[in-house]
Amino acid sequence: MTPSLTAARLAERHRGTLDTALETTRTRVHWSPHPENPKAYGGENTAVPGSQSVPEGAAAFEALRDTPFDLDQPALADRVGDEISPYGFRLGIDYPRADLEALLPAMRAAMPGWRAAGPELRALVCVEILARLNARTPEIAHAVMHTTGQAFMMAFQAGGPHALDRGLEAVARAYDEQTRLPERMRWAKPDKRGPVELDKEFVPVGRGVSLLIGCNTFVTWNGYPGLFASLATGNPVLVKPHPRAVLPLALTVRIARETLAEAGFDPNLVALAAEGDGEGIAKELALRPEVRIIDYTGSASFGEWLEGNATQAQVYTEKAGVNTVVIDSTDSYRAMLGNLAFSLSLYSGQMCTTPQNLLIPRDGIDTDEGRKTFTEVTADLAAAVDKLLGDDARAAAVLGAVVNPQVLERIEKAPEQGEAVLTSRAVPHADHPDATIRTPVSVALDGSSADAEGVHQAECFGPVSFAVATDSTADSIALLRRTVRERGAMSVGGYTTSPEVERELVEACLDECAQLSLNLTGSVLVNQTSAFSDLHGSGGNPAANVALVDAAFIANRFRTVEIRRQA
Amino acid sequence: MTPSLTAARLAERHRGTLDTALETTRTRVHWSPHPENPKAYGGENTAVPGSQSVPEGAAAFEALRDTPFDLDQPALADRVGDEISPYGFRLGIDYPRADLEALLPAMRAAMPGWRAAGPELRALVCVEILARLNARTPEIAHAVMHTTGQAFMMAFQAGGPHALDRGLEAVARAYDEQTRLPERMRWAKPDKRGPVELDKEFVPVGRGVSLLIGCNTFVTWNGYPGLFASLATGNPVLVKPHPRAVLPLALTVRIARETLAEAGFDPNLVALAAEGDGEGIAKELALRPEVRIIDYTGSASFGEWLEGNATQAQVYTEKAGVNTVVIDSTDSYRAMLGNLAFSLSLYSGQMCTTPQNLLIPRDGIDTDEGRKTFTEVTADLAAAVDKLLGDDARAAAVLGAVVNPQVLERIEKAPEQGEAVLTSRAVPHADHPDATIRTPVSVALDGSSADAEGVHQAECFGPVSFAVATDSTADSIALLRRTVRERGAMSVGGYTTSPEVERELVEACLDECAQLSLNLTGSVLVNQTSAFSDLHGSGGNPAANVALVDAAFIANRFRTVEIRRQA
Repeated sequence: MTPSLTAARLAERHRGTLDTALETTRTRVHWSPHPENPKAYGGENTAVPGSQSVPEGAAAFEALRDTPFDLDQPALADRVGDEISPYGFRLGIDYPRADLEALLPAMRAAMPGWRAAGPELRALVCVEILARLNARTPEIAHAVMHTTGQAFMMAFQAGGPHALDRGLEAVARAYDEQTRLPERMRWAKPDKRGPVELDKEFVPVGRGVSLLIGCNTFVTWNGYPGLFASLATGNPVLVKPHPRAVLPLALTVRIARETLAEAGFDPNLVALAAEGDGEGIAKELALRPEVRIIDYTGSASFGEWLEGNATQAQVYTEKAGVNTVVIDSTDSYRAMLGNLAFSLSLYSGQMCTTPQNLLIPRDGIDTDEGRKTFTEVTADLAAAVDKLLGDDARAAAVLGAVVNPQVLERIEKAPEQGEAVLTSRAVPHADHPDATIRTPVSVALDGSSADAEGVHQAECFGPVSFAVATDSTADSIALLRRTVRERGAMSVGGYTTSPEVERELVEACLDECAQLSLNLTGSVLVNQTSAFSDLHGSGGNPAANVALVDAAFIANRFRTVEIRRQA
Repeated sequence: MTPSLTAARLAERHRGTLDTALETTRTRVHWSPHPENPKAYGGENTAVPGSQSVPEGAAAFEALRDTPFDLDQPALADRVGDEISPYGFRLGIDYPRADLEALLPAMRAAMPGWRAAGPELRALVCVEILARLNARTPEIAHAVMHTTGQAFMMAFQAGGPHALDRGLEAVARAYDEQTRLPERMRWAKPDKRGPVELDKEFVPVGRGVSLLIGCNTFVTWNGYPGLFASLATGNPVLVKPHPRAVLPLALTVRIARETLAEAGFDPNLVALAAEGDGEGIAKELALRPEVRIIDYTGSASFGEWLEGNATQAQVYTEKAGVNTVVIDSTDSYRAMLGNLAFSLSLYSGQMCTTPQNLLIPRDGIDTDEGRKTFTEVTADLAAAVDKLLGDDARAAAVLGAVVNPQVLERIEKAPEQGEAVLTSRAVPHADHPDATIRTPVSVALDGSSADAEGVHQAECFGPVSFAVATDSTADSIALLRRTVRERGAMSVGGYTTSPEVERELVEACLDECAQLSLNLTGSVLVNQTSAFSDLHGSGGNPAANVALVDAAFIANRFRTVEIRRQA
């Protein structure tokens, strides 16, 4: 049977995108084929062919609610699902549960055909999946919003185009890595009895089933890199979503399976393993002998368990860290405060890259508005946050909703841990009266206190930050080094006008292997990284063993089999 | 102080070599800057500037004997060393033992300066080390011969130029991987309020101390890839030789330290950790928190222990497998026998790539000399081995010496395990009357016997092969698959004139991830791989988790720290 999506058609559609993606992973310039403006979607003049408009996406999401999710996947058992929107309603969707004893062999059986496709066709099929996901961005944005609590605009951008960018970056990198050796060549070694000749063939082969263990917050953004890196390198991918954030990945799996089938491949190359809340099937799946690759985003404790126990697999983890900003001095005091206020507020601090500890010398900092004491800095930052979030509608659009009860509890308990310099308030949502929305809280701590150390050296995920009074900037940098080494960091920020302090901050981050942003005062936040250009995480401190998306994230997902023949 | 080896001088000398090496890792053609003919060394017209001649190398080796090995390394404690040549004499060399509590911090302290050198200068310094090692190839060849038992020509070629080729391949790959991102760039994202701009810098940083755990057989060939991959990516390398094969790596460390110092870097970037036989310091070293990378070649049991326990480190292992040759049919019967006879005899089968199991249908094979029964094939192969090794001098030059008493014991016990179809004899050595030299032994086994399965499915390192009678070639291929999956394989061979059987062999090796050589009848053996062109091992079956030298062997030895600054 000739597939409807032929290799030639896929090449015509996507080879240009793949080439530009490849080129951009090298130049690191700004580029994306996925528009981030919702207005670019839907209608005849859309920049995304065949895409839904935002209202169409909303309607599609509503149509999914309170129905069984339809998935054409073999070996189904019963149904599970109990997602609750952080905006205050049940999704009412249930998903088929897979019979893993039957599914895993079916996935393995799909490998030879996918291997035979070769790196280019695999990449093109992946780009087609990404293009179809992009056309459904408005619907997926609603699914992301109502599983993670992200405000709509963030759910749209981070859950749609930015996640697709990271997926495409992984596909481009995977293609790149798999094509570094020639497919075939003749080798000839000079010899006095005539050249010794061999014909050599190099075939990239996948490792086995790749398990994606999804998270609750950046479901697609953190999920797509591993999913597409593994798929493009020849591995079937079993997607195990977080039980509270199934829908975005279930839609992804369905679209991937449809695309694979239309291109003539076994749809079991991508499959869903849904589970009910609290079942914990990830642990069992992670130890299955068929599972040879694991991508995980989530708690440090489970990440470390995977690294130590799933030794039959390549394990890629993004865990948790204690992100730090060292504040030494600035020539743009107001802009610094504005940038930090946004960093602390965006998605209620529920980003793995949100700053937690702000290290400020207790005797204050030099600024373009003169010397500011520790107390003044924390008060001015609190005022900047209050100003940013003063209007309820704007506050809700920045904050999104609180993703789970544990985060809410941390917000409530934070003021007990020190001197509250910014207090949290509940924000109402115009459309969703039961949404749980809170402004950030910030607590001042004494950096020389051992009790305080116990507080600021533990990760406190959510909109809670600690303003830590240090003896000096040198003391701040020493604490930064210790924090990164022992607790890890996904991001480090620094503000200074001193070349010497800047040099010391850079050396600290090179030594401890952390990504550093200096003097951010514009619209880019320390929490944000841009696909094709920025690395997300360093992979060299306890917060994560990967960086998105570098060669190390790709190169060990496949192996190369060489076939030598006497010429 | 200006270093005598400046960056400009190193670039003038070695940039061309580095560029050709880089290009060749992509084209995979035959190339080497290290001559494999001993006559190319020494004298005025040498192809290797400043090199020793073979007699000079022999004299240098003799001068090392019965003296303390001089090593300019800090933190030395007492002295150790008790190497015995497999050719029957004590080397009488002792080595300084390092005080690790002082050495490891000194090695870590060397990192910032080496990091600041950047990828190109690091690569050029590494190429200079390789060039100096090449000039000392004649001396190192004697050191390799008298620690491993390799015959002189193999010790010269595999221990010298071929090992240097693998080291240079690692340096080229390391440079390549570290320079895939720009050093610096300005990123600009269009925005209606004017472009959002950031200056970005990408700095490759090493992970920490890299530990090389040396083996007893291919001391330099298996050691140099990890050593140079780690050093070129910014890591200090602690070299822990096998207690029976210290000298080749001690010379390597000394030359590396001299070169580093002359180039203005801390010589503690490479250091030796010698130990006495039976001390087992590798286990302690492997768990040190400073150690972040481990390269290991040796037994499966210790390799698996490292993989499961040294979780603070990236662990690269080459362990052991059961290498198999499937014999189905041939149109070059004599040439096949000759090629296999050489494969089984070379260095007394003490190569990780030497075939162990020859799978032959019990009802025989079709050949250009007509149908040959199982018994005829094994008898003809035995005759081919006897012919190859009929002359004692030639036998000694092919076989080398038996590396240790365990191998000797296996040779002696082999005939008890089945029907001996080729028996071993002792070979005298003209120059070394106490050398332990033995011809190979081969034992016929019934592939349908469970007892026999226990024999041929265990690795039997040394000149012992099993001719396994199978029901059919299909049965052979099924056994091949099971062997690779469960026991691993560094190499697989196949002989067939049938396109269908060839296709099945290829599919089996793609499925089980093993390197396949088909119908080798010339001077290339299944045991041999050529740097820059062939991959050594697949990294995808239990025999090894690495392939020499691919991107995965390099990419995770360093991390990239990004520094973003508001533009």
